[in-house]
Amino acid sequence: MIVVMQPNATPEQIDHVVERVREIGLKDQVIKGTELSVVAVIGDDRKKDREVFETLPGVQKVVNILAPYKLSSNEVKTERTEVAIGQACVIGGTAVPVIAGPCSVENEQQILETARAVRDAGATALRGGAFKPRTTPYSFQGLGEEGLKLLSAARDETGLAIVTEVVTPSDVELVAEYADCLQIGTRNAQNYELLKAVGQQPRPVLYKRGMAMTLDEYLLAAEYILEAGNPNVILCERGIRTFENHVRNTLSLAAIPEVHKRSHLPIAADPSHGTGHAHLVPTLTYASIAAGADAILLEVHPDPQHAYTDGAQSLTPATFTEIMPTMQRVAESIGRTLSGMPVGV
Amino acid sequence: MIVVMQPNATPEQIDHVVERVREIGLKDQVIKGTELSVVAVIGDDRKKDREVFETLPGVQKVVNILAPYKLSSNEVKTERTEVAIGQACVIGGTAVPVIAGPCSVENEQQILETARAVRDAGATALRGGAFKPRTTPYSFQGLGEEGLKLLSAARDETGLAIVTEVVTPSDVELVAEYADCLQIGTRNAQNYELLKAVGQQPRPVLYKRGMAMTLDEYLLAAEYILEAGNPNVILCERGIRTFENHVRNTLSLAAIPEVHKRSHLPIAADPSHGTGHAHLVPTLTYASIAAGADAILLEVHPDPQHAYTDGAQSLTPATFTEIMPTMQRVAESIGRTLSGMPVGV
Amino acid sequence: MIVVMQPNATPEQIDHVVERVREIGLKDQVIKGTELSVVAVIGDDRKKDREVFETLPGVQKVVNILAPYKLSSNEVKTERTEVAIGQACVIGGTAVPVIAGPCSVENEQQILETARAVRDAGATALRGGAFKPRTTPYSFQGLGEEGLKLLSAARDETGLAIVTEVVTPSDVELVAEYADCLQIGTRNAQNYELLKAVGQQPRPVLYKRGMAMTLDEYLLAAEYILEAGNPNVILCERGIRTFENHVRNTLSLAAIPEVHKRSHLPIAADPSHGTGHAHLVPTLTYASIAAGADAILLEVHPDPQHAYTDGAQSLTPATFTEIMPTMQRVAESIGRTLSGMPVGV
Amino acid sequence: MIVVMQPNATPEQIDHVVERVREIGLKDQVIKGTELSVVAVIGDDRKKDREVFETLPGVQKVVNILAPYKLSSNEVKTERTEVAIGQACVIGGTAVPVIAGPCSVENEQQILETARAVRDAGATALRGGAFKPRTTPYSFQGLGEEGLKLLSAARDETGLAIVTEVVTPSDVELVAEYADCLQIGTRNAQNYELLKAVGQQPRPVLYKRGMAMTLDEYLLAAEYILEAGNPNVILCERGIRTFENHVRNTLSLAAIPEVHKRSHLPIAADPSHGTGHAHLVPTLTYASIAAGADAILLEVHPDPQHAYTDGAQSLTPATFTEIMPTMQRVAESIGRTLSGMPVGV
Repeated sequence: MIVVMQPNATPEQIDHVVERVREIGLKDQVIKGTELSVVAVIGDDRKKDREVFETLPGVQKVVNILAPYKLSSNEVKTERTEVAIGQACVIGGTAVPVIAGPCSVENEQQILETARAVRDAGATALRGGAFKPRTTPYSFQGLGEEGLKLLSAARDETGLAIVTEVVTPSDVELVAEYADCLQIGTRNAQNYELLKAVGQQPRPVLYKRGMAMTLDEYLLAAEYILEAGNPNVILCERGIRTFENHVRNTLSLAAIPEVHKRSHLPIAADPSHGTGHAHLVPTLTYASIAAGADAILLEVHPDPQHAYTDGAQSLTPATFTEIMPTMQRVAESIGRTLSGMPVGV
Repeated sequence: MIVVMQPNATPEQIDHVVERVREIGLKDQVIKGTELSVVAVIGDDRKKDREVFETLPGVQKVVNILAPYKLSSNEVKTERTEVAIGQACVIGGTAVPVIAGPCSVENEQQILETARAVRDAGATALRGGAFKPRTTPYSFQGLGEEGLKLLSAARDETGLAIVTEVVTPSDVELVAEYADCLQIGTRNAQNYELLKAVGQQPRPVLYKRGMAMTLDEYLLAAEYILEAGNPNVILCERGIRTFENHVRNTLSLAAIPEVHKRSHLPIAADPSHGTGHAHLVPTLTYASIAAGADAILLEVHPDPQHAYTDGAQSLTPATFTEIMPTMQRVAESIGRTLSGMPVGV
Repeated sequence: MIVVMQPNATPEQIDHVVERVREIGLKDQVIKGTELSVVAVIGDDRKKDREVFETLPGVQKVVNILAPYKLSSNEVKTERTEVAIGQACVIGGTAVPVIAGPCSVENEQQILETARAVRDAGATALRGGAFKPRTTPYSFQGLGEEGLKLLSAARDETGLAIVTEVVTPSDVELVAEYADCLQIGTRNAQNYELLKAVGQQPRPVLYKRGMAMTLDEYLLAAEYILEAGNPNVILCERGIRTFENHVRNTLSLAAIPEVHKRSHLPIAADPSHGTGHAHLVPTLTYASIAAGADAILLEVHPDPQHAYTDGAQSLTPATFTEIMPTMQRVAESIGRTLSGMPVGV
Repeated sequence: MIVVMQPNATPEQIDHVVERVREIGLKDQVIKGTELSVVAVIGDDRKKDREVFETLPGVQKVVNILAPYKLSSNEVKTERTEVAIGQACVIGGTAVPVIAGPCSVENEQQILETARAVRDAGATALRGGAFKPRTTPYSFQGLGEEGLKLLSAARDETGLAIVTEVVTPSDVELVAEYADCLQIGTRNAQNYELLKAVGQQPRPVLYKRGMAMTLDEYLLAAEYILEAGNPNVILCERGIRTFENHVRNTLSLAAIPEVHKRSHLPIAADPSHGTGHAHLVPTLTYASIAAGADAILLEVHPDPQHAYTDGAQSLTPATFTEIMPTMQRVAESIGRTLSGMPVGV
């Protein structure tokens, strides 16, 4: 942390900052510039409330030097984390798994039909919501435990690993019983009690970025899961909220190489939520793979026109099947492959 | 809803849209324009997934006409809602209560000292967090039930109503036992299970806007509380996330008159979180009152330099006491008053 | 500037940074922290390309300490700048002038009628566009010099000072012949050739913030005008672009006290563009005054339904006349007045 | 356009809207819904001020149906536009040209060295600024005409087409004399006088998106160039301004397929400005190609550490040369190629 003094700060004010630095157990070094002085604070200040220095007399502003996160940083853990979901789906290596399925589990036929179709096209995991955080109380809220059972049946039949969302701490145990991987959605990205709860159970967690979170905030919030004891966290870029109004969210693909630079955790991309419109999904999927995404999440529904939820951004099984070979070629072009897909098609 | 067809849409495609409209029980009216045709959908489509029409062949886009919320709309309830917190604090009338206190309850002396100071300066309710949703797992997370007891003691001594945050459904009953009003913070603004939980208990709810929520989304999410049976919802503008980097959040004061236009619910303003820096708080407080805020939330701490949380945006009791008369004058200038403050000072 | 090294940076890499610092004529001080080292750069680095240090091996990031602007800073000039527009309108003192008028000058009757009405209600300057930067080439582009003549005639009749926009360098001389103050609009806020051109002529400049400019960028761009030799710059907050979709722009009122803290320049507010909807204008005008705006810009049109431009955000003369006394009361409540309005109404 | 009435609008208010529609020469159709009525306006309303209907009594809001742009729409011109820059560089076909070079032309050696290097690596055009719109008046502002002459010399030597920025109308003729393609930068994206000026000369225009422009606004502003008579417009996604603070801009790649859907104009991508940091550029370049960009702009400098401008985001010739084969493979993976690069490497 650097405490920047005002140009007219008095020596007493600088001394006061120094005292306060020592009071919290850190060291100081005062640098007298030509325009103003700064107090450099030496030591790990990540667990301190750094902004409080702003309130000291003569202080202009506080500049953080250390990134606030620690466990998710690759300064602490240098080798890349690989997370296995179920038997066959590993996220974080050279191979890129595709996790596909409907927004919501609607009924047995729908989920089984989708599961078979996406498996046949090359997906290695099935996504589908049994508990849905809907923006309106009037919309379908998910089938609950029945949905989990249908997902489980789809796994039995297809061998696909199951990824499904959990929306509240009291459901964590139940969802973990059925799912191979627990998803935290964007609306719960700062529901810290839920993050702690999924951190205390053994299943991997697919943790989506909040739509207004900076990367610093995102990696820091991920620490709630890591610190609670669960090292198997998959990050996910799913679009941020901006003024751009032709999309539901703005997929910020630079987040992918930046996370790779800062963190050992794998990061997936979700072009379905990252655009909100099916006609943009194939292209942004290719872009996500080219940007280095470690997994791809896609919404696929056998009949988008009648989907209970997110129909507008769902691909049909036919389109999904059609784009998978191109996805594979894009992956190969940057030296990767899609998990379980034939190479060199 | 208006379904806008592509310029080259065929009659069959238009017919297909019409069929789909009728299938969900609504009526249609086709309008042939000079450039393109649209299908106007007649009836209450708020409980339908309107975006799904986007997937139909020949459809260009879907335009929603009806605002998605209903219970929070003043089309449904025309008289303004007034919410009483405790005995003396009413939000939504001409008088504007000031709810002040520290970000976190730290210890008995701190909360009692603050409570006395803000009461003496004219506040009618005390805010203070016992359960804190912190952006980092390494920060102080609140005193929990002990904090609630200290707040209760502060109420006993000062007569101030108590507003405190609840962060997870399983704490709702406990918090409701001690508090006069339950606060939902911005990070939990789309934690729908929590919204349902506070909707099922009898205390009023101070529900802060999510930092990336549009007003439509905000009023719609408020319906989770209203629909669960709790009519006593106080909205709160606390700043949104934008590119503006000299503030922690951008206080969007136009939200206040817009909510007054659309909804019967009262809306408070929180200039402390809405700026993030103590030096901006007095001015933005005046602006919030002038913009018509029905209540003002302010962070006040006896020693901001040593505050566990949010020191940078906390006012001292001295500054708080100093700005209250100006706040009162601003309120009077637009025909209102601060609750419990002498008029015409 | 602080150059933050990577945790694993080598001594050679640190030395290289130090050499590069000295090469550009600045001094260095290396601080070895527990987690990483930083190189503090001492001296005025405002005219250097600071970001280039990011490219040096072993560098993690560069943190700027000195604000980039200089002439607009109140570190350089401590007394507040007051700018006189015409005879009677001074911006930057205790009194707050109101600058009102239509978006576009349409014809003689319209501008004279508006000028009389706003003068009678208490405005001290008349705004109106003769050269219009319209978002579409198909819209009315302004009357050009004829519009300037009509504004001049309105001044002759009413005594109001004239504020009007200039959109390109080659028009500067012409506009300066007729106007008392030249306006730079948000779309030209980074049209630096235009900023230089208005900096080289003698009229004061009302310089609106670009809708995507941070305050640092804004104050820095203002230096183009100041450095060219024109000290009479009035800044103006007119709303920024955010995800908020119920307004045309988000009026960021915290910019007003922040500019007052950092700069000696006065800052106006424009609640008409800052909201885009007439029903929000009165309330946000009160808020702008309470936030400390040094002048208020308002769009007033005798017949908004038939306005050529910006009808949706224009007040009628009747509404304008009605809100002026409340504006005056708000100004008085914070110890100011509206220029030329009777006090204590 | 659809004029949405308030739920309690009177028949007289609806009639008044109808009259006003007819007054501007359009037709109307009133639709009575269960909750409210709307007036559908039939005819081309693109040249009308649609928002003005918002001011009519009883009107709730106005919804635009027709996109505001026309000449840039592929409803008007169905075949895709191909733009030739110089002899060998065509933008808008299957082949994707790479336009590379330094931010600023600094001196003969720098520009010639860069030109040779990027040509040898496979670029087909050279970019470089002679007139620079800098965020600070204290920075290098470009070499002016001398820079243009150096670019011309580089073309003579390498055969590369020249793309360079023009910042003010009075320079257009001069720049057009030397350049093969005129660039309009993001800060001048709504400098309409400049758009008109480049529309009236014969060189193609590379027109970058303003950092706060929606796609509708962008395509509409492009019409200024098209309507002035110049059909050779290349759009360019170069990042938008968002809250994301680890990048200089947020590259919004969904804009590429969306422009392809709506417009016949080609669209380039600029991953250098779209990220602002050299370490993110290669990955985002791959993503831009995968997203369908019709050309790629890259900043390349022989010595980024000593670049006068934009050093932080410049690639070295070595890195540029290294990533070109991967760029080619990504292009091939989606059925395209880089212009002039060997295929199947």
